[in-house]
Amino acid sequence: MLDEFYIEELVKKKFPSKSISFPAGIGDDAAVVRVNSKKIVASCDSQVEDVHFNLKLMSPEEVAFRSVSVSASDLSAMGAKPKFFLNSLFLPRKTSKSFVDNLFKGFKKACDFYDIKLIGGNVSQSKSLILDISIFGEVVNNNIKERLKSSVGDLIYVSGKIGDASLGLEVLKKRNSPNSKEKRMIAKYKSPKAKVDLGLFLGQLSYVTSMIDITDGLSLDLVRLIGKKSRKGANIIWENIPKSDYTFDSTNSKKLMNNVLYGGDDYELLFTLKQNKAKIFEALCKKRKFQVYKIGMVNATGKFSINKGGKTLKLRPIGFVHKF
Amino acid sequence: MLDEFYIEELVKKKFPSKSISFPAGIGDDAAVVRVNSKKIVASCDSQVEDVHFNLKLMSPEEVAFRSVSVSASDLSAMGAKPKFFLNSLFLPRKTSKSFVDNLFKGFKKACDFYDIKLIGGNVSQSKSLILDISIFGEVVNNNIKERLKSSVGDLIYVSGKIGDASLGLEVLKKRNSPNSKEKRMIAKYKSPKAKVDLGLFLGQLSYVTSMIDITDGLSLDLVRLIGKKSRKGANIIWENIPKSDYTFDSTNSKKLMNNVLYGGDDYELLFTLKQNKAKIFEALCKKRKFQVYKIGMVNATGKFSINKGGKTLKLRPIGFVHKF
Repeated sequence: MLDEFYIEELVKKKFPSKSISFPAGIGDDAAVVRVNSKKIVASCDSQVEDVHFNLKLMSPEEVAFRSVSVSASDLSAMGAKPKFFLNSLFLPRKTSKSFVDNLFKGFKKACDFYDIKLIGGNVSQSKSLILDISIFGEVVNNNIKERLKSSVGDLIYVSGKIGDASLGLEVLKKRNSPNSKEKRMIAKYKSPKAKVDLGLFLGQLSYVTSMIDITDGLSLDLVRLIGKKSRKGANIIWENIPKSDYTFDSTNSKKLMNNVLYGGDDYELLFTLKQNKAKIFEALCKKRKFQVYKIGMVNATGKFSINKGGKTLKLRPIGFVHKF
Repeated sequence: MLDEFYIEELVKKKFPSKSISFPAGIGDDAAVVRVNSKKIVASCDSQVEDVHFNLKLMSPEEVAFRSVSVSASDLSAMGAKPKFFLNSLFLPRKTSKSFVDNLFKGFKKACDFYDIKLIGGNVSQSKSLILDISIFGEVVNNNIKERLKSSVGDLIYVSGKIGDASLGLEVLKKRNSPNSKEKRMIAKYKSPKAKVDLGLFLGQLSYVTSMIDITDGLSLDLVRLIGKKSRKGANIIWENIPKSDYTFDSTNSKKLMNNVLYGGDDYELLFTLKQNKAKIFEALCKKRKFQVYKIGMVNATGKFSINKGGKTLKLRPIGFVHKF
């Protein structure tokens, strides 16, 4: 069966295009290219009705804001600064003017929140609502962070609570009156905020060795970060993964693990750094008020595992994958 | 009813964003932005199944090549050089691997033909096939061409035969065995070639005052080029518009006019230039083997007209417009 991995491999094989103008080649969160001798970073990401969002659960304004956040997060994961975006809109028949007005309210909110500009776009008819965002931005001081560049012994960090977004979606689907904790999780699902400032900060630290954003689940994105074809592996500690209070209230431990490891939609940064820099790094983050959490270490096992309650379990590289 | 003009106006009103980093603002074929102090040009365009193409009439390879051509043409219309593109693919369920292989054959062909690079993309499920291309490129010597910049008295030129693509689509729909002339027109519809070299050449001529590519029909794109809110207007000469032999074989004069004026999909360049430079310009084009055809003049009437057989007719700014 066709899935997104097939397409990724096809592209890597058919378009082996590392070059002076395209130094990193294909396969990261965003593309780094040289235009007029300067490096810029570009990425595209889409939100498809009934695949990425449900209009019964989210307003057009929220969907639009989310579409920009998701794309901005790709650039943050490279340590780059989002600057501009194009929006390609695919609208079903009978879309109303007020619906479009509300979409653009969301885009405007994203422009203000991220200090970025909408520079153009495109609109077409389609069978369901799709927002496709192409975003590009600047590389600061020629520094970018990529996937796959970690070494054995590097420490693994995340930038915030994991699992909240997918729990938020579950609460949203139940349509009960959410309490304040639940409302925070719903907001994390509906209106994720790309960690642009932290991404830029990490992008400038030479001892941060690799980075990705968590979109399809901690487990799957960890494997993407470290690389499944390398001889490297990783071990993470369940107890060290930051989770919200609500998560701990849950009595269903298996479901909880599913949300945290395989849930996705969190848009937190996941990155590795040189072990001997951990102290200085954590002190620096404290000073700058960036929250970071050490959750594990890169190892030489070629396998991915998680320690929970003293036991070591296999970490399955599953998460949200597009299948056709 | 909602249409694309409503959205265009909404964006212009809500995102009045001319700035140092975005000098031209919104509203042209492509966006010109300053990144790291250098100007780059970016645009997005999409091909939607059953809106822009029909898979019964075109192969996946042709659809993919076309999607890149259409986007490259946007950059050519600015006088810029396409360099890189991202492809966002929306695939229906049960899309096969061989279908995807063929799509990427088309992308590869476009990479080779235009000497551009596929640098990344995205894939998602959807209800019908959509290819959304974001393309970006370089501005040469800081020169770009925009819409709306012509003056009264400027001459209007096109770069090739108009109406062939829409006639080609008609022939294709009839599914007869096409003759050689018809085959050329079908090819013009299926596999348009963006006029990149000519666009770059025109981009460097200071006396070329404005430019656009003909996507939605000569008539509509002429109005877009000159501007409908200005006091300017334009008059074009039917007999001077280049058309293929086949077109003249047609006995239905009204239908023929519809194809040429309102047909679209030709991806020829439409541009204006200073009247006193016409001679030097045409000599230069002849030397460089660029085909250009003078078809009319910008005037001060505020209206758009066409002369045909000695009579002056009103030129209606109609063509392909997305409505919802």
